[in-house]
Amino acid sequence: MFLLKPRWSDLDAYSHVNNVTWLEYLQEARVDMLLVHAPARGAESLADAVLVVRAEIDYRRPMVFRQAPYPIEMWVSKLGAASFTVSYEIADSATDGPRVVYGRAATVLAPVDMASGRPRRLDQLERDVLKRFLE
Amino acid sequence: MFLLKPRWSDLDAYSHVNNVTWLEYLQEARVDMLLVHAPARGAESLADAVLVVRAEIDYRRPMVFRQAPYPIEMWVSKLGAASFTVSYEIADSATDGPRVVYGRAATVLAPVDMASGRPRRLDQLERDVLKRFLE
Amino acid sequence: MFLLKPRWSDLDAYSHVNNVTWLEYLQEARVDMLLVHAPARGAESLADAVLVVRAEIDYRRPMVFRQAPYPIEMWVSKLGAASFTVSYEIADSATDGPRVVYGRAATVLAPVDMASGRPRRLDQLERDVLKRFLE
Amino acid sequence: MFLLKPRWSDLDAYSHVNNVTWLEYLQEARVDMLLVHAPARGAESLADAVLVVRAEIDYRRPMVFRQAPYPIEMWVSKLGAASFTVSYEIADSATDGPRVVYGRAATVLAPVDMASGRPRRLDQLERDVLKRFLE
Repeated sequence: MFLLKPRWSDLDAYSHVNNVTWLEYLQEARVDMLLVHAPARGAESLADAVLVVRAEIDYRRPMVFRQAPYPIEMWVSKLGAASFTVSYEIADSATDGPRVVYGRAATVLAPVDMASGRPRRLDQLERDVLKRFLE
Repeated sequence: MFLLKPRWSDLDAYSHVNNVTWLEYLQEARVDMLLVHAPARGAESLADAVLVVRAEIDYRRPMVFRQAPYPIEMWVSKLGAASFTVSYEIADSATDGPRVVYGRAATVLAPVDMASGRPRRLDQLERDVLKRFLE
Repeated sequence: MFLLKPRWSDLDAYSHVNNVTWLEYLQEARVDMLLVHAPARGAESLADAVLVVRAEIDYRRPMVFRQAPYPIEMWVSKLGAASFTVSYEIADSATDGPRVVYGRAATVLAPVDMASGRPRRLDQLERDVLKRFLE
Repeated sequence: MFLLKPRWSDLDAYSHVNNVTWLEYLQEARVDMLLVHAPARGAESLADAVLVVRAEIDYRRPMVFRQAPYPIEMWVSKLGAASFTVSYEIADSATDGPRVVYGRAATVLAPVDMASGRPRRLDQLERDVLKRFLE
């Protein structure tokens, strides 16, 4: 669970968090996972260049500027040989009543060799760390 | 064809146009179509709130900071009763040799009633204008 | 004291928080003061259009992406008839040793009449609320 | 003269180009001068790390989203031993009638040694190139 505090500057002319900025929110959540949590578990290589090769997102309800951060749940939904998929849900949890889901998204990520800039396979340690994030 | 001039501020820490910013590029292209070209043809209503309900994008090659603008082709790829899909291709055209495709994307858009904020059907004039953008 | 958590997307191609983004940080701090704290004390009008008419900022040390938020102290440093100045200091407090100052800034703000868009004088309630933020 | 095309995404919740984004506009103009024009004249070193150590800006009239780009004039207004000041004016030129000035600004810039990250003096070639931009 990553908590993203909206900024007033995230608002567009309609006073909603702009739809483009949603992807920035997902990026912040993912960076937290790959740059902070994965290295802490031994997969420093995931903190280096991991390219986004595909993104898809469904917008359900507008996000606004508010004091409470937006919770972002994320998990590895697919683990391939040379890529992996991170799925996301932005939703307020409900203590009593239904959860409010703002949107759902997925990004396909591919590690690249830093020297050559070319795609490479995930190594065993990276796979082991990513497996812990599998749904 | 929309020409998008990259800004130095579009670069992220990897010196590439950040993947999130690609969606901003598409948004600028779409705004040009909906706020400028569609109203000029009589569909002012499309310039008001049209929500993005879904976006998907495939990244092929990195975009960098350069003097030449990036060409964005866009067209209406699907026209429904209460939504329509705009597809995009960011590519350098080749005078001789193959085209360089940076990425392809699609966004599903839904008009909303300004007063109630609720989704509404496309009216006949809007459909007529959007038909001209059909592939 | 406002705590601003840096985002990875705040970094520019030099891997520093871009100098432009520093102003965004100040804006978030100011919005917190004017949209949240001032209305809570009875000056709702300060939450409406208050224009920035001047900004100045001195950059001392680069800010980077880190887990700990950057503390921003701000105070009203000048209170005029039709404008006021908010000063800022971004600095890590030191429990033992000297404080690390990243930068200092000031913005001159002027309330505008929402209907006409023209500058207007600060009223008595606004002045009373702003006085509490005087250094 | 640098021509800056506004983006719809530059607008804030007040439908104006956000005051922070003005600094981004100046940055784009400056990058054009330092990364494109200065290197073309032999001062490649100015394209490397030149830090912004101070910025000040006066806002006169709001900028909005429009088709016509905003013209930004800039010039070196002060040339020191280890820093220089670039001044800017954003204004529509008037063919007949008074010019419309949106704002004026200045940024103090200091070259840094790339290896050590420490400030350094401007060398003779850099000074010669910058002199051509002196008002």
